[in-house]
Formats: sequence, C-alpha cells, structure tokens
Amino acid sequence: QTFKIASIPGDGIGTEITEAAIQVLDKLAQVDGSFKLDYTHFDWSSKAYNERGWYMPPDGMEQLQKHDAIYFGAVGWPDVPDHISLWNLILPIRKNMNQYVNVRPTRILPGTKSPLSSCETDPSTLDWIIIRENSEGEYAGQGGTTHENSPHTIATELAIFSRVGIERIMRYAFETARSRDRKKLTMVTKSNAQRHGMVLWDKVFYEVAEEYPDVQHDKMLVDAMTVRMVNNPASLDTIVATNLHADILSDLAAALSGSIGIAPSSNLDPTRKHPSMFEPIHGSAPDIAGKGVANPVGAFWSAAEMIRWLGQGKLDGIADKLMQAIENVTKAGVKTRDLAGNSNTREVTEAVCRQIETV
Amino acid sequence: QTFKIASIPGDGIGTEITEAAIQVLDKLAQVDGSFKLDYTHFDWSSKAYNERGWYMPPDGMEQLQKHDAIYFGAVGWPDVPDHISLWNLILPIRKNMNQYVNVRPTRILPGTKSPLSSCETDPSTLDWIIIRENSEGEYAGQGGTTHENSPHTIATELAIFSRVGIERIMRYAFETARSRDRKKLTMVTKSNAQRHGMVLWDKVFYEVAEEYPDVQHDKMLVDAMTVRMVNNPASLDTIVATNLHADILSDLAAALSGSIGIAPSSNLDPTRKHPSMFEPIHGSAPDIAGKGVANPVGAFWSAAEMIRWLGQGKLDGIADKLMQAIENVTKAGVKTRDLAGNSNTREVTEAVCRQIETV
Ligand SMILES: CC(C)[C@H](C(=O)O)[C@@H](O)C(=O)O
Ligand SMILES: CC(C)[C@H](C(=O)O)[C@@H](O)C(=O)O
Repeated sequence: QTFKIASIPGDGIGTEITEAAIQVLDKLAQVDGSFKLDYTHFDWSSKAYNERGWYMPPDGMEQLQKHDAIYFGAVGWPDVPDHISLWNLILPIRKNMNQYVNVRPTRILPGTKSPLSSCETDPSTLDWIIIRENSEGEYAGQGGTTHENSPHTIATELAIFSRVGIERIMRYAFETARSRDRKKLTMVTKSNAQRHGMVLWDKVFYEVAEEYPDVQHDKMLVDAMTVRMVNNPASLDTIVATNLHADILSDLAAALSGSIGIAPSSNLDPTRKHPSMFEPIHGSAPDIAGKGVANPVGAFWSAAEMIRWLGQGKLDGIADKLMQAIENVTKAGVKTRDLAGNSNTREVTEAVCRQIETV
Repeated sequence: QTFKIASIPGDGIGTEITEAAIQVLDKLAQVDGSFKLDYTHFDWSSKAYNERGWYMPPDGMEQLQKHDAIYFGAVGWPDVPDHISLWNLILPIRKNMNQYVNVRPTRILPGTKSPLSSCETDPSTLDWIIIRENSEGEYAGQGGTTHENSPHTIATELAIFSRVGIERIMRYAFETARSRDRKKLTMVTKSNAQRHGMVLWDKVFYEVAEEYPDVQHDKMLVDAMTVRMVNNPASLDTIVATNLHADILSDLAAALSGSIGIAPSSNLDPTRKHPSMFEPIHGSAPDIAGKGVANPVGAFWSAAEMIRWLGQGKLDGIADKLMQAIENVTKAGVKTRDLAGNSNTREVTEAVCRQIETV
C-alpha cells in the first residue's frame, strides 16, 4: 500500500525536523515492508513568500487534496508578521481541509523529567490527551478595524461557535475518552465571563454527555484548569477545549511534561474526505534554527500518529514500534538540550532509526 | 484619617476570608493609630439573589461611589449559573467604576514551596507582577445567539480593543515595570491567530515602548508564555496581557508560586474618580466553604494593597508591616492545607494579628 504524503517543511527548524521525520518514516517503511510513502515536497514558507509574494499558489488546496495526508514542519519567521504567515498557510489548511479536530497527547517520556516536583517519583501521573476544536471559535477569522490610524481606533475579534461545530468536537472527545482506560473527560470553558458562545459550548457538552453514560465528565473554567494541571495532574485524562483555550493549555501541558519539543499534534478530518495534517506543536524557533540541534521527537511522534491515522487500525503495530523506538532512545539518554541531554538532531534521528531495526 | 470601605463578602469562602481580612485590618489600624476604616457591609451575593432576585439594587453603583475603596470576597455559587452571578456583580463593578487596571503580583512566600522543582533552591526566581487589562477585550460583554434551540444555533463572543483602552494599560504597565528593580516588561499577545484586535495591541505596545527607553521590553505569544513561565520564571518580571490572557496567566502564576490561595488582586481606577476594588483572585470554593479552612493570605495581601492605594504613599509602611506579618506567619509554618500546613483560617488570622503587634 502506498500513501501519498504532502510534505510542507516550512520555516526554521520546521525544515530540519521534517527531514529527520522523513528519514525515520523511510526506515520504518523499509523495515516493515507493508506500506510505502510517496512524498510531494512543497516549498511553501516565509522564505518563499519573501521571494515571490505568496505562501501557497492559488490551486494550493487542490494540490493538497490529492494526498492521503499532510506532514507539516513549522511556519513563521521574524521578517514576516505572524498573522500574515499563519493566515496564509497553516490556518487556511486546517479550515479548508475540514480538520476540525486537533489531537494533542502529552505524557512524560522515559528518561525525561517534568519540571513539576510532584511528577518526579511517578511520571505516569501526567498522561493527558487534549482534544482541541480546530475550525471555529476564537480562530473564526472574523473581526476588523475602524478609525484606523486615529486616536480612536477600535479593533474587534469575533469568536463564533456553532452548535454543529461544538457537537462534533464533543462527540469526538467523548469517543476518545471512552477509548482510554480511565474513561474520563474534562471540559474547559470560560462561560462565567463569556455569556454566549461559551454558554452554548457548556450546554452542548452536557447534552452529548447523556449519550456517554460510561464516561465520567466534569467541567473546569480555563483559568482554574491551569491550576489543576499544575497541582493535580493525575486527576485529568481526556480534555476538550476551544481553539484558543486548547492552544494555550496544550503548550502548558507540553511544558509540564518536560518539553514543548516532544509534543505532537494531529489535525484531523474525521470524515476522511480531506487529508489530515500532522505537525509537532512547536514553532520554527528562529533562535536555534540552522544549528542542527532541534528536538525531532515531536516530529517523530507526529509521524507515528500519521501512520496510525493512515492505517485505520492496520498500521497500529508500526506506529507503536516507532513510539517504542523513541522511548528507548530518550530512556538511553540520547536527548537534545531542551530535555537536558547533549545530542543533536542527527544523533537522535540515527538512534531512533537504529532502534526501529531492533525493537 | 478615616477611609470609607464598601465590603462585599459575597459567596462561600468569600465571607470567611473577608471577615478575617477585616479583623487583620482593624488590628493594623489599632496598632498604627494614623488611620481608621469605616465599613459599609453589603450582602450582595448569590444567596441574596436566590431570595430576592437581584445581586445589586438599582442604585448599587451610587452606593459604592460613596466609598474610598471596595473590599470584595468572592462571588459564584453552584445554584446560580456563573455568567449570571458574575455579570450581575463583579464584572459591572469593574466596568462602572472604571477599574481598567487589574494588578496581580506573584511570588513565593517564605516557608512555602513552588510546585516547580527549579524554584526549590532559590524561591526569588519567581517574582512577577501581572498587569491585566480589566475593562474591555474578551470581557467587552458583547455577542449573542442566533437560531436558539435549533440544530443550527450560532453564538458569538465579540472581543473589543480600543486604542484608548490599550494605550492606558500599556502606560500603566511600563510605569510599573519602571518602578521595579529590573525594569523589564513582557507583553503577551496572540496576534498570530487574531489579526485585528491583537495586532492593534502589539502596535500600541511598541509605540508606548518608545516613551520608556529605560524599560527593557519583549513580546510573547500567550501559548508560548505558559512554557516560559514554567521553564524560565527568572526571565520574567512585569507582564502585561489582555483581560482573558491575564486571567489565565495569573491563575497559572499563582499555582506556580505555591497556591491560588495567596494571590491578591487590585482592580484600580488610576484616575481615582471611582473607588478601586481589592479581592483575592481565588473564587468562592464551594468544596471547602463553611469549614473555616480557607486560606486568608490572598485576602490579607489584597488588604495590604488596599491600604497602599488609599495611602497614596503615606501608608506604605503600614502595608509593608502587614506583608511582613504575613511572611513571618508562613515562615513559621502557620499555614492552611493548600500550603501544606494544617492550620485553619482562624489560626492563621490570629497569628497574623499577633505579628502585627510585634513587627
Ligand atoms: C502557529 C499558530 C497559529 C498555532 C495556533 O495558534 O494554533 C500554534 O500555536 C499551534 O498550537 O498549532
Ligand atoms: C470571577 C471571574 C469573572 C473572574 C474573571 O474571569 O475575571 C476571576 O476569574 C478573576 O480572575 O478575577
């Protein structure tokens, strides 16, 4: 079976970790033999934008649509305003490809350390999966500016929540919670301050909850949620939150689990009419770009999730093999600096490739 | 000099910690002798709402206006939807009293412990002051619902940012940063995803920065900010953020400093045309309410900030005395359960009163 992958390395360390991920994926395909990956490489990036004035060509979405999945590195570079780069590349892909679910698992990998002293003796206390609404809410893209360049400028951001949008993400979240050992879902909201969209969000949550009597559920305000993540990580399992809340909480989750460099994300179209997209949650990291020291683990973990998604159950063993290889490598202490190691990207990549051959 | 204080204990532990704060304030006034506090007690609460159908009477704001400051406990109770309680009490006060600045200091008190292992040897690594925009943004209060009770319901939240609103909070933040040893301000934004209001926010920040060449400044995206707070607390000093971002970050800050139970907040009208309001940042805590075990430290610290504000420089010594008393008490291990102690509210309060007599 051959899968067509659109690869978009993007900017900064995005290119370095995408190269590393492809190396690992190729090794996996070679060792396993049951599937092949056929790549189209897209040079859509801030660099290209500076040269030719665009990120994606006018038929960019059609080109992507011809693929089974999209592998994404990172986008954003200091010489282009962030809202230009993101709204010309990553955000339109999430929206046009109907990737309304963003899945962000977090746990403490063997041989690595959480900054929380409470997790030191038992790293399994932190094992979460954040389900992020990925298509609307605070990222609806509406809003505007009036009285520009005047002392009275007014600018707005419009967050839009639809029942359809909320229902589908809640259902996905309950299904995820159900599939996990603890069957526990925590919903995050800010309905005390935001009386319209967030109140609808709460309402639909409780409605959908009725369909899942076997799943324990509770509700947290987003501010209090950060406290609970810090103080009582073991009390959380599956988490569902809006586009912005989950953006914030998933970075916090990654930091609490040891490093933002290990965290993967899957932008999914559960209808499978469009390719889903897999990307580490870290950015282009201009400060370390070009030095070959970026942590490729988030990229590898994202690659494992891509294989799992493509295989629809049939390639889980291979995805697990990659995860096992990653864990053996971190456990052995082959880690980049953000994980308190002293290996570089290439060394971690080669160690994972060697593990793939043996595990 | 006599100051008129409007006290609004509110719900749950709000009443317990307000009582404790008044006891401590009275002791302070008695020991010092240079000022008096004259209280009006308002029973505005969820309990009262359930009985008579309203939180504040129609002339509530006029009643508050007759005072020099407002001392607030907490509002919110499970039997009233949160958006009803909050939009009928705390949020209208912040808005009507022009309290456009919310100041939230955070540090690790002596004898207490941060959950971050990196802060264990040197607690002074975490010493922040968060300046929260308190009048507009995501709390502008606009938005609505269309197609209610239909499968196609759409609900919106409108965040509104004005140049006037941004300029004044930025100026307050730069002044605060300038007044501190490190003269360092970090501005938080999400202008990569939110292209209108947040882009204006950034723009005004850089403009105002030009007026403060002696203050170092930098910019963080809100998601990455949580990572920096966890990984590199010492790199932060003064922080300015929107209403929602700062709401989230200040809870996280409090958790990282040891407990949400110690964190104070000052809702300020810098023009002094209206009374400012002082409240601990924790909520009404239904789970521990009525048991006499709430941590009163956040309430005491808020009281110290109230004295400082009322004194306009002349009562700083007295505010410092209260802070010193609190620190002596935590250092001596007289702490509530959230700080890993086993004292109750009364014991901590009495210990602080005794310290006030001796420090
Ligand atoms: C790059 C940016 C638009 C993005 C987001 O805010 O969604 C990133 O922070 C993420 O978490 O994937
Ligand atoms: C009670 C609630 C409206 C409030 C807020 O969100 O502002 C609280 O969380 C706070 O931080 O003061």
